Amino acid sequence: MPMPEARFRLAPRMAEIQPFYVMELLGRAKALEAAGRDIVHMEVGEPDFPTPEPVLEAVREALEHGRMFYTPALGMPELRAAIAGFYRDRYGVEVAPERILVTPGASGALQLATAVLLAPGEALLMADPGYPCNRHFARLVEARAVGVPVGPESGYQLTAAQVEAHWTAETAAVLVASPSNPTGTVVERAEMAAIAAAVHRRGGRLLVDEIYNGLVYEGDVTTALAITDEAFVINSFSKYFGMTGWRIGWLVAPPAYVRDLEKLAQNLFISAPTPSQYAALAALRPETLAIAEERRLAFRERRDYLLPALRELGFRIPVTPQGAFYLYADISAFSDDSHRFAMDLLERAGVAVTPGLDFGANAPGRHVRFAYTTSLPRLEEAVARIRAYLEGP
Amino acid sequence: MPMPEARFRLAPRMAEIQPFYVMELLGRAKALEAAGRDIVHMEVGEPDFPTPEPVLEAVREALEHGRMFYTPALGMPELRAAIAGFYRDRYGVEVAPERILVTPGASGALQLATAVLLAPGEALLMADPGYPCNRHFARLVEARAVGVPVGPESGYQLTAAQVEAHWTAETAAVLVASPSNPTGTVVERAEMAAIAAAVHRRGGRLLVDEIYNGLVYEGDVTTALAITDEAFVINSFSKYFGMTGWRIGWLVAPPAYVRDLEKLAQNLFISAPTPSQYAALAALRPETLAIAEERRLAFRERRDYLLPALRELGFRIPVTPQGAFYLYADISAFSDDSHRFAMDLLERAGVAVTPGLDFGANAPGRHVRFAYTTSLPRLEEAVARIRAYLEGP
Ligand SMILES: Cc1ncc(COP(=O)(O)O)c(C=O)c1O
Ligand SMILES: Cc1ncc(COP(=O)(O)O)c(C=O)c1O
Repeated sequence: MPMPEARFRLAPRMAEIQPFYVMELLGRAKALEAAGRDIVHMEVGEPDFPTPEPVLEAVREALEHGRMFYTPALGMPELRAAIAGFYRDRYGVEVAPERILVTPGASGALQLATAVLLAPGEALLMADPGYPCNRHFARLVEARAVGVPVGPESGYQLTAAQVEAHWTAETAAVLVASPSNPTGTVVERAEMAAIAAAVHRRGGRLLVDEIYNGLVYEGDVTTALAITDEAFVINSFSKYFGMTGWRIGWLVAPPAYVRDLEKLAQNLFISAPTPSQYAALAALRPETLAIAEERRLAFRERRDYLLPALRELGFRIPVTPQGAFYLYADISAFSDDSHRFAMDLLERAGVAVTPGLDFGANAPGRHVRFAYTTSLPRLEEAVARIRAYLEGP
Repeated sequence: MPMPEARFRLAPRMAEIQPFYVMELLGRAKALEAAGRDIVHMEVGEPDFPTPEPVLEAVREALEHGRMFYTPALGMPELRAAIAGFYRDRYGVEVAPERILVTPGASGALQLATAVLLAPGEALLMADPGYPCNRHFARLVEARAVGVPVGPESGYQLTAAQVEAHWTAETAAVLVASPSNPTGTVVERAEMAAIAAAVHRRGGRLLVDEIYNGLVYEGDVTTALAITDEAFVINSFSKYFGMTGWRIGWLVAPPAYVRDLEKLAQNLFISAPTPSQYAALAALRPETLAIAEERRLAFRERRDYLLPALRELGFRIPVTPQGAFYLYADISAFSDDSHRFAMDLLERAGVAVTPGLDFGANAPGRHVRFAYTTSLPRLEEAVARIRAYLEGP
């Protein structure tokens, strides 16, 4: 039978879903490496540390019985209980395990929360610059992300005043990430409370992405759950525990939403990966937490080296980032085309950084993100190379 | 600061996203077990076999280095190549690795394919009864699933004639699962070609879920990829390889869609679980395939026992299911309320089956699904119990 030609049809949403632009740069970096060049990777948004040994050991044990079946959609009960214990021990906050959903990464948590909340055409307010996937989680379900330009004056974070100023009849929810990717900055407790109050007063819902909350280097660290039970709080084992590839995270939801989130999780994911749930369980044990704390101190040491070094080279980083492993630098002193700047830095200096374009529409050409997800000696090497590059031939 | 009360707001889609109804029955089954009752589980849609030993061994090896980082969004290149090899060796079909996306289960593949194709309001045609998540993948992106009632006359599968009869201006795509969940029946090659031709002629796209394609017990087994390069073909390591909890599957896409699918995968999943990708790689090795084949024969033996046994008891199973591990039985001889029938069977006979409601709106009250995902002796025990139950006190 002759087969009629198939038509290329594409959902309109795809025109607005952007790729990770940094992948092009990463591809070029790999090509240079294949050709023998040494590249310092500061574009990668994941820790360079391997999975902690106690986690590997626990997975090895779990593999003994080989019973890696689907788990309940909400996650293994012992893991949900362990996460509740984590909130109790670390933050002194009581979170009922029934409100905790184990998800395939913070990614899965973000998808569930946005899909449950956002009707078509509704708006999700978020800071610009911000984590790029967020706007696509909204777009996927035919809602809209509204990026609110933020700058140094608010520590690159939304304020309650901005939430109020940008609220419209279509606004359904507000997403805050603290510490933020790409800026590493934190929303202070009082401001978080004011944001929550502003959102709730207007009948909206607050989502707080705390994926970098384990990696804060100064000041009091708290969780939005210490402020309100009505926020959707997203977290993950990816960053603080160095477990990106395991694809395991969690969502703490207001109790009234658990049933709806569960049915969505059943249908979209069935369940989070079972070996990763065993891994996560071991991540929360004291011996792993001790390792994670050591790594946090290593990240802090890197930040404390890199931040003044970059400033001295002429990068503007006006607010000291309190957490995550990113520095978001204004490169106006050198260029207004961050893509070209990053490509040039890669080709000529062998240093890979992420141009601003991946993080939104707020002056992306004037910014790059440095990730300190490589060792201190490599960061020193990068700084030396950047210095030489900026000084020119 | 006093916190204003938060409003419960829910996206309208949630009203149409149904939970897995069988969970209620499963909960009751577990309660009975906790109270000391012995329950034969025939409601579970996953193999009872553990992860094959060579897979466990490969994961143990991969854990040695602990480098469980994000992989490329499309999957590890070696795994994509191995999947291409699987198509070559098993079906004699050449599939370029570039067209293969590694996904978090068939679930992830179904989500990507539907999201890339379906505009809001567009229709996805599918057989009713069918796998329940499918309609929700469509609903998630504000499209509509249109269930076409199918029965024994077409082997509980869509036909090309039905596709043509149900096509409307809104129809964008057609989803076929072969073998089907819940019916275990297969679409023959000529009919699949006719369906593909009908879909393409009308400017639509065909999705073929081949998750049970490894578990076919008679007749020639082929893949839709032997018929057309223009279909989206979904598969998974969950069922044939007994690896449900690993959450790893794949999608073969028409080349023109790969770039769009990739950017969607980047944003929704980042990547599929890394340990599971190592596991999948080992699943495709000859020694694991040999184990999978043994298990396939065990499933066939179970089917060959259970099918006549249930028929003899008065369950109507008019078409012999060629694959999967399900028997979809018409219970009209006993009841027109499958939910009550299943609950009663559980309470009084200690046998758990899935009522039709989970599979659609086509006479769900008159059907239950038996999964032969338990050992032959347990199936015999179940049949004895059902016989006693039906004969009454
Ligand atoms: C702010 C933020 N949220 C969420 C994620 C998703 O992380 P994962 O899905 O690995 O938990 C990332 C990853 O880079 C991130 O930076
Ligand atoms: C027909 C069908 N498709 C897809 C899936 C999803 O499987 P997974 O995501 O585990 O690969 C299932 C699971 O039961 C199924 O029965």
